[in-house]
Amino acid sequence: MKRNLYLTTRPVEEAREIYMDALGSSAEPKTETVRVIDALGRVTSEAVHAIYSSPLYNSAAMDGIAVISSATAGASEASPLTLKAGEDYVIVDTGDPIRKPYDAVIMAEDTQETEGGMIIRSAAPAWQHVRPVGEDIVEGEMILTRCHRIRPIDIGVLLSGGVTEISVFAQPKVGIIPTGSEIVEPYEDPEEGDIIESNSRMFEAMVREQGGIPHRYDIVPDDYEEIKASVLRALDENDMVIVNAGSSAGTEDYTVHILREIGEVFVHGVAMKPGKPVILAKACGKPVIGIPGYPVSAYLAMENFAYPVIRRFTGIRESDERNIKAVLSRRLVSSLKHREYVRVRVGRVGDRYVCAPLARGAGAAMSMVRADGFCVIPQETEGYEAGETVDVTLLCSPEEIDRTIVCTGSHDMLLDVISDMMSGEAEGVRLSSTHIGSLGGLMALQRGEAHITPSHLLDEETGIYNVSYIRSLFPGEKMVLVKGVGRVQGLMTAPGNPLGIKGIDDLTRVKYVNRQRGAGTRVLLDYRLKQAGISPEEIDGYDTEAATHMAVAAQVAGGEADCGMGVYSAAHAMGLDFIPVGNEEYDFVMRPETLELPEMQSFLRLLTCEEFKAELEKLGGYTAEHTGEIRQIIPE
Amino acid sequence: MKRNLYLTTRPVEEAREIYMDALGSSAEPKTETVRVIDALGRVTSEAVHAIYSSPLYNSAAMDGIAVISSATAGASEASPLTLKAGEDYVIVDTGDPIRKPYDAVIMAEDTQETEGGMIIRSAAPAWQHVRPVGEDIVEGEMILTRCHRIRPIDIGVLLSGGVTEISVFAQPKVGIIPTGSEIVEPYEDPEEGDIIESNSRMFEAMVREQGGIPHRYDIVPDDYEEIKASVLRALDENDMVIVNAGSSAGTEDYTVHILREIGEVFVHGVAMKPGKPVILAKACGKPVIGIPGYPVSAYLAMENFAYPVIRRFTGIRESDERNIKAVLSRRLVSSLKHREYVRVRVGRVGDRYVCAPLARGAGAAMSMVRADGFCVIPQETEGYEAGETVDVTLLCSPEEIDRTIVCTGSHDMLLDVISDMMSGEAEGVRLSSTHIGSLGGLMALQRGEAHITPSHLLDEETGIYNVSYIRSLFPGEKMVLVKGVGRVQGLMTAPGNPLGIKGIDDLTRVKYVNRQRGAGTRVLLDYRLKQAGISPEEIDGYDTEAATHMAVAAQVAGGEADCGMGVYSAAHAMGLDFIPVGNEEYDFVMRPETLELPEMQSFLRLLTCEEFKAELEKLGGYTAEHTGEIRQIIPE
Repeated sequence: MKRNLYLTTRPVEEAREIYMDALGSSAEPKTETVRVIDALGRVTSEAVHAIYSSPLYNSAAMDGIAVISSATAGASEASPLTLKAGEDYVIVDTGDPIRKPYDAVIMAEDTQETEGGMIIRSAAPAWQHVRPVGEDIVEGEMILTRCHRIRPIDIGVLLSGGVTEISVFAQPKVGIIPTGSEIVEPYEDPEEGDIIESNSRMFEAMVREQGGIPHRYDIVPDDYEEIKASVLRALDENDMVIVNAGSSAGTEDYTVHILREIGEVFVHGVAMKPGKPVILAKACGKPVIGIPGYPVSAYLAMENFAYPVIRRFTGIRESDERNIKAVLSRRLVSSLKHREYVRVRVGRVGDRYVCAPLARGAGAAMSMVRADGFCVIPQETEGYEAGETVDVTLLCSPEEIDRTIVCTGSHDMLLDVISDMMSGEAEGVRLSSTHIGSLGGLMALQRGEAHITPSHLLDEETGIYNVSYIRSLFPGEKMVLVKGVGRVQGLMTAPGNPLGIKGIDDLTRVKYVNRQRGAGTRVLLDYRLKQAGISPEEIDGYDTEAATHMAVAAQVAGGEADCGMGVYSAAHAMGLDFIPVGNEEYDFVMRPETLELPEMQSFLRLLTCEEFKAELEKLGGYTAEHTGEIRQIIPE
Repeated sequence: MKRNLYLTTRPVEEAREIYMDALGSSAEPKTETVRVIDALGRVTSEAVHAIYSSPLYNSAAMDGIAVISSATAGASEASPLTLKAGEDYVIVDTGDPIRKPYDAVIMAEDTQETEGGMIIRSAAPAWQHVRPVGEDIVEGEMILTRCHRIRPIDIGVLLSGGVTEISVFAQPKVGIIPTGSEIVEPYEDPEEGDIIESNSRMFEAMVREQGGIPHRYDIVPDDYEEIKASVLRALDENDMVIVNAGSSAGTEDYTVHILREIGEVFVHGVAMKPGKPVILAKACGKPVIGIPGYPVSAYLAMENFAYPVIRRFTGIRESDERNIKAVLSRRLVSSLKHREYVRVRVGRVGDRYVCAPLARGAGAAMSMVRADGFCVIPQETEGYEAGETVDVTLLCSPEEIDRTIVCTGSHDMLLDVISDMMSGEAEGVRLSSTHIGSLGGLMALQRGEAHITPSHLLDEETGIYNVSYIRSLFPGEKMVLVKGVGRVQGLMTAPGNPLGIKGIDDLTRVKYVNRQRGAGTRVLLDYRLKQAGISPEEIDGYDTEAATHMAVAAQVAGGEADCGMGVYSAAHAMGLDFIPVGNEEYDFVMRPETLELPEMQSFLRLLTCEEFKAELEKLGGYTAEHTGEIRQIIPE
């Protein structure tokens, strides 16, 4: 097959260094003069010095009277002194000039007005409550260094120091070219084979956040000459250019060839995952970067390679990166061949941060929205064991993390509903849920990696949900069970149930999609199969795992499977047929101290509020008889 | 005197609570629909759900060939299989749809093209390298909760999920009214008695940062009716109004009276310092806040009271506050009567953060620019001892702090020059200097609260600078002295030296301004006075202290003093006459391990670079013979 070959795959830092060196003066910042009142967020290109002193003159630091200090000598409680208006004193407000012969201020509180004068009861030393000229800012003093990003307070001080215009780095214009014959604009109706173009819009926002001015071009189909023409035009109109997709080694990946023709390619392929197919080039004396098409790859490639170039132009020195240390909840294996960025959810449980890995595919953009940060596994490292402390680069603020309930366990759509309602609370509480099934969740809770675990584990012997599992996993510990909802589990089929599935017995003749090991729904299936005397081997697709009810529903709706087990609300949301199999109890397990958290109070309040009940009604398939009831689980 | 009286002075939280409760629906957010591509930084007013699944169809996850899994069975290294094009396989790029009968993808790398077909060497199980429909986003799935601030990645995912418009909170319009007969616009030429209006411009920037739309009105003089008319107009045109200054209890402070007339005042006076004279009111059904005039008070009042109201409108839940723990370098005394915000410089020395208090005046806006954060002393607390660990709210990022050299000791203008040059370094290194004199600096160094101390302490017996002081303060320790500059110290007088000052002997007949205790310049003065047989009591102004050379120069230039001692560069900068008194050595003291810090390498490099020498030349009064030389100080 005719495909590109990566000549080399370079380590991230090496690639960046090679490129920044190669760019040299191709990414030199330009400067411009702006009004101070328009300068918020801009970056100084040179030091700024005060033109005036502040205060400009000796001035009153208090409301009161300006006096001649020598004329107040001797005044005391025992022998008060009466000063004559206009002669011995004048009334001043804070900021008023203190002119000769006055040289001190007595506070209003310490004076008493009287017929023909003002009584004082203590002497004022010279300069009392007077701000001398230049006390705050001295004429000629350096107010700001170069490369300083202007904050509101800087604007105030610059103006006070008589500075009305400053020299700042010009915002770089960044051309963004989406390419690909299969991509369509978001507002068009996509058909099979179409991919909605979204990366370029994410890039626009990223460029804006970094202080650049994005200029997005129309989508260019996979055509060598058309892409080349668009790149040349963008190079002419911008300071740097981003070409999206076509940066890999596929049959229609033209970018690297075009950049070789019109300029120079310094790096093609970087040892990072996701994000390997990056092109770092220069053409017409300007930086051009080829960014891969998968959204997560695209995001990471932008951050690692486009940001440093944009920062060269903007002069912004600090990165907004926020890093914390967190305890890893699951083993993470990675290859020595690349640096890997793994999306994680982060929460503070007790006095430590814990992080749980999310989906790792380059295409799983939604997992980036749900992620709180990235755990970076360095090249030359095979990964980390569960329980190791790792570095996490946050995608949100540490304060948000501190206000987050970490919910790890079984999946239900009502978690989204509560999460949404919690976000609306004035305190901005968050619910961060990871779906690893009931049993996995209880084990995470045991290891102190979660606040609460939604669970629906059936004890086959007693028919009671959750309690026996909690007792066996937390021996000797007092635990709390907050009753959640009753929900209907059942078999989801295509609309109209074309295969006529009536129950568990029919599963041997259809293509099934299962839930992952440890999921309560899978436990229920196994229980029912056993009752029916069916062995898992008899079911086609028993080993096909999906992580959520909605993912099962989507596979059935998409035709990849004929049938899957899940809750009614998921079937309802995807317009599927639903054959009830049984009612179960979906509860929340936690340690007693978790109940004390203010975030948990908010969770409990919302569980029993009217809006939540209405939402359950809308989703369908739930009962809320005992919702919000707190049960103490005492060890036997 | 006719003045307002504060009825009560309320604790900060109580004031805020009273006000937010009183506002009720007067600060209810409005919503609007925006295009997703314009939504960066906006805040969702309701949960957003996916309209399409992503991928929209089963698609190739790799570049390669789509195959029929059953037709690949049996292929192995030992018995490769040749597939027929168009029949057994089709070539696919990543993202291409996988249509029936194809159900798996083999990577390009694992295939070999041949006459009439493609050779494969392993079987492909069904669904290998195929992304099923909805793998990333499932139709109907909640993508974002309400109250979520849109990030670039959200824009990408929303568009991928078929969402092109979302409902967000409208940005509140905030009217800003600067009042005061003494204030003038920045671009006007100020005269004595004028104050340059800068607060309203700072407020504009603060409102923008918080997601509001500022609307600044013209300056209104201190006139009851004029201010009232302006407030009424602003209330009509905005969602909330900020009135600046006139919020105190001075003779011309009308704001509270006006707000009582046209609305209701809930709080007048808050127990915080700076920032006490705050007015929290409602008029025409909208929030109105009176903010004090001193810049630091204004900043803190905005942050504590205007921000929460703006956030009610914007729906933004998280604050950008960044807090750290730091060790306090100096004792901080405060009153039980109020919560005090003390500006501090912060640095990381070794493995802990240390913070040094800066000027505390409400008018010292420049100290806010120089500050890295606020240390908050709670009401009911009398302050903190040196060495205590305190909470600091940062005004910059923790990463900036980590890249900061903490420089505590003697002041010289060349520190500004180096600081500016360091900011220009690609790594964004910072120099944070606090001026507490040479001796105070060495003591801070001793306590591990500084990286380096600029010092010029003369040993009167040996005539050698610094070394003996270091040996006695760091007994038994190896230390490093980096040679700085030689500099001329002298007496600064008004231009033309009107009093004919020739030297130390003349100080008995003039008004003097001194440096603070522990300053090398004061040590030098004392030494010269002793030589001349003059006692400090003979000098008028010996006890008047200024903290920097420039502050001394400003007092002389302003006429508050006739004469002060300082370096030539300060006299030169302020256009003063200068009578040389002696040459001295201004060096940098540090521990040996400090030399290893990358930031220090950058400092040393800049000390000896050409640009720095040229700047010294420009400042005047310096020699740079040994600049940058490293001397080991071995204990005796």
